[in-house]
Amino acid sequence: MKNTYFTPGPAELYPTFYQHLQRAMDEQIGSISHRSQQFRDIYKFADEQLRTLLAIPATHGIFFTGSASEVWERMLLNCVEHESFHLVNGSFSQKFYDYANDLHKHAHVLEKPFGEGFDAADIEVPAYAELVCLTHNETSSGVQMRPADMHKLKRKYPKKLFCVDTVSSAPYPDLDFNLIDSAFFSVQKAFGMPAGMGIWIANQTCLAKAERLQKNDSLTIGAHHTLPTLWKHYKTFETPATPNVLYIYLLGKIAEDFNRIGIDNIRKQTEEKARMLYKFLDSSDGYAAFVKPDRHRSQTVIVATTGSPDRVKSPADVIKVAKTANMIVGSGYGKYKESQIRIANFPAVSVDQVAALIKELQK
Amino acid sequence: MKNTYFTPGPAELYPTFYQHLQRAMDEQIGSISHRSQQFRDIYKFADEQLRTLLAIPATHGIFFTGSASEVWERMLLNCVEHESFHLVNGSFSQKFYDYANDLHKHAHVLEKPFGEGFDAADIEVPAYAELVCLTHNETSSGVQMRPADMHKLKRKYPKKLFCVDTVSSAPYPDLDFNLIDSAFFSVQKAFGMPAGMGIWIANQTCLAKAERLQKNDSLTIGAHHTLPTLWKHYKTFETPATPNVLYIYLLGKIAEDFNRIGIDNIRKQTEEKARMLYKFLDSSDGYAAFVKPDRHRSQTVIVATTGSPDRVKSPADVIKVAKTANMIVGSGYGKYKESQIRIANFPAVSVDQVAALIKELQK
Repeated sequence: MKNTYFTPGPAELYPTFYQHLQRAMDEQIGSISHRSQQFRDIYKFADEQLRTLLAIPATHGIFFTGSASEVWERMLLNCVEHESFHLVNGSFSQKFYDYANDLHKHAHVLEKPFGEGFDAADIEVPAYAELVCLTHNETSSGVQMRPADMHKLKRKYPKKLFCVDTVSSAPYPDLDFNLIDSAFFSVQKAFGMPAGMGIWIANQTCLAKAERLQKNDSLTIGAHHTLPTLWKHYKTFETPATPNVLYIYLLGKIAEDFNRIGIDNIRKQTEEKARMLYKFLDSSDGYAAFVKPDRHRSQTVIVATTGSPDRVKSPADVIKVAKTANMIVGSGYGKYKESQIRIANFPAVSVDQVAALIKELQK
Repeated sequence: MKNTYFTPGPAELYPTFYQHLQRAMDEQIGSISHRSQQFRDIYKFADEQLRTLLAIPATHGIFFTGSASEVWERMLLNCVEHESFHLVNGSFSQKFYDYANDLHKHAHVLEKPFGEGFDAADIEVPAYAELVCLTHNETSSGVQMRPADMHKLKRKYPKKLFCVDTVSSAPYPDLDFNLIDSAFFSVQKAFGMPAGMGIWIANQTCLAKAERLQKNDSLTIGAHHTLPTLWKHYKTFETPATPNVLYIYLLGKIAEDFNRIGIDNIRKQTEEKARMLYKFLDSSDGYAAFVKPDRHRSQTVIVATTGSPDRVKSPADVIKVAKTANMIVGSGYGKYKESQIRIANFPAVSVDQVAALIKELQK
């Protein structure tokens, strides 16, 4: 019997994934040239579907990388001459900040404890920060930052570039790309695909910055996947190097499926399942939602505390019991393995599957 | 009816690919955690199979990137403080050199015209070059450099790091990894997989260099996929970021299939098919092998001139006619589209399929 993966990525494959893969194999998509019209049509299709799904305006390009982690590096190399600013409240926002330090950028940071969230009112962006790095959904702690707060912040600092990590939440967050200069995600989360590809959305302001930095002899914007090179090839729906043609094809197909359902419905279903999970956690004796304020509770990665002295089951117990019912629950991140579980709430799992999981956790 | 792809990458999928993919889907490999024992076993298996296939000693680690092009950048960032040296005789060796310039390295170059090859005797490595960048197989022009020449060169310059691009030839070249410090390839060529992953082999001398450069405040070795981070995670068969778990699984399985056949047999079959193709080109009125000296003729990407005034068919004609027989032949690279075709000779195409192609080209 197949398992249902409630893990926060890699995660459950989207139900239509298998038929798209079969069709791709039938059409020999794995063998076609990335310099062929057939590939350009595949890129164009994925671009159109993602553009519709996420309301991406013509000012922004859509590019493919090896992972979302790679985008952290590309964003910093291409768009920061001296200073970046990072909101850090978990392991992944921390890594974005670490990358800035590794690249010898002057990285400013505003930190909050693991599990706590940011509101626009908390934040003062340092005067010389060129890029503001936000994380919509901290996969490690299950904390979200509301798009409304991001938009408010950008309006307060209109001259700074804003970049949003939506790795484990896209297409859920309703970002206004008239305000957000760049965002990125990976395919193995809410898009229900195997891991191995990152998606980078960036606008012409980012491109202009990269072009300016490229002329500066005292720094490098890198050699591979620079924004100017990506953009140049993007104009004809090509890529500088051989891309993951198969995954781009599959992503386009799944984005099309999402568009058929409608982004509003996808978001509503996500919220409904999240409500079910938080309601269960809030009313349960054996579990507690880790994140308390409603506005900071992730809708896509729900983190629960369990295994503390007054709770019956340890995370390991919970994961083991769920597994006997063919449900794979995520462990807590890093040292939180001992006290937490993580439940992914991506479009690939249905209301019924979430209900079944809750029933199992209740036992 | 399915096509047979004789294109130099993306290329024909290896015949066992489909059954491995089916099994991966049955086992839900696309959903498993990259922090699980199941993944570590998959990485370990791929590592063991590649190690056997390519005779990689324990001094070298095996890492996964988004593409082979990414490795150009990683190699230069991690292993060059000031100066690199490049042999350039086609578009891909040129790109490796371009990357060095983009990263502001002092890049030395020895150039030969498109279609000509290098021998050890031609080459004097500049005194301060830290890294010698060789291309075993120029995918654009069908020129190879013999491993014996590479080994001779390294013996002459034992203190310099040697890195070999084997993108469109591995596992064919019999590199002596006691002499070669680093090599890399991508999976969509001779391994018969869809594009989207690069393989980077590098030894402890490369690692030591990267660790030394990392302490140098005046440069950066990058933030993503640095050699020290890759190696640290590699010790437990993990990766710094979420890798392409599915492709690593498939690569391990195909390498295992290659090992069952035996690397000697794979090499012999490759040479037999190459002999058939060159014999046909050399004896044909309608075509000519582009590369003349035997020792520089690629065994895996055979480039033929056609469409010159005295030839009957243009490359476009040849490609069109082959396509009607469900055979996809590669076009010449870049501006050579007008006068050349490229025929990939990877393990995925059999002696019979090559014979059938020759028959078709003869018409």
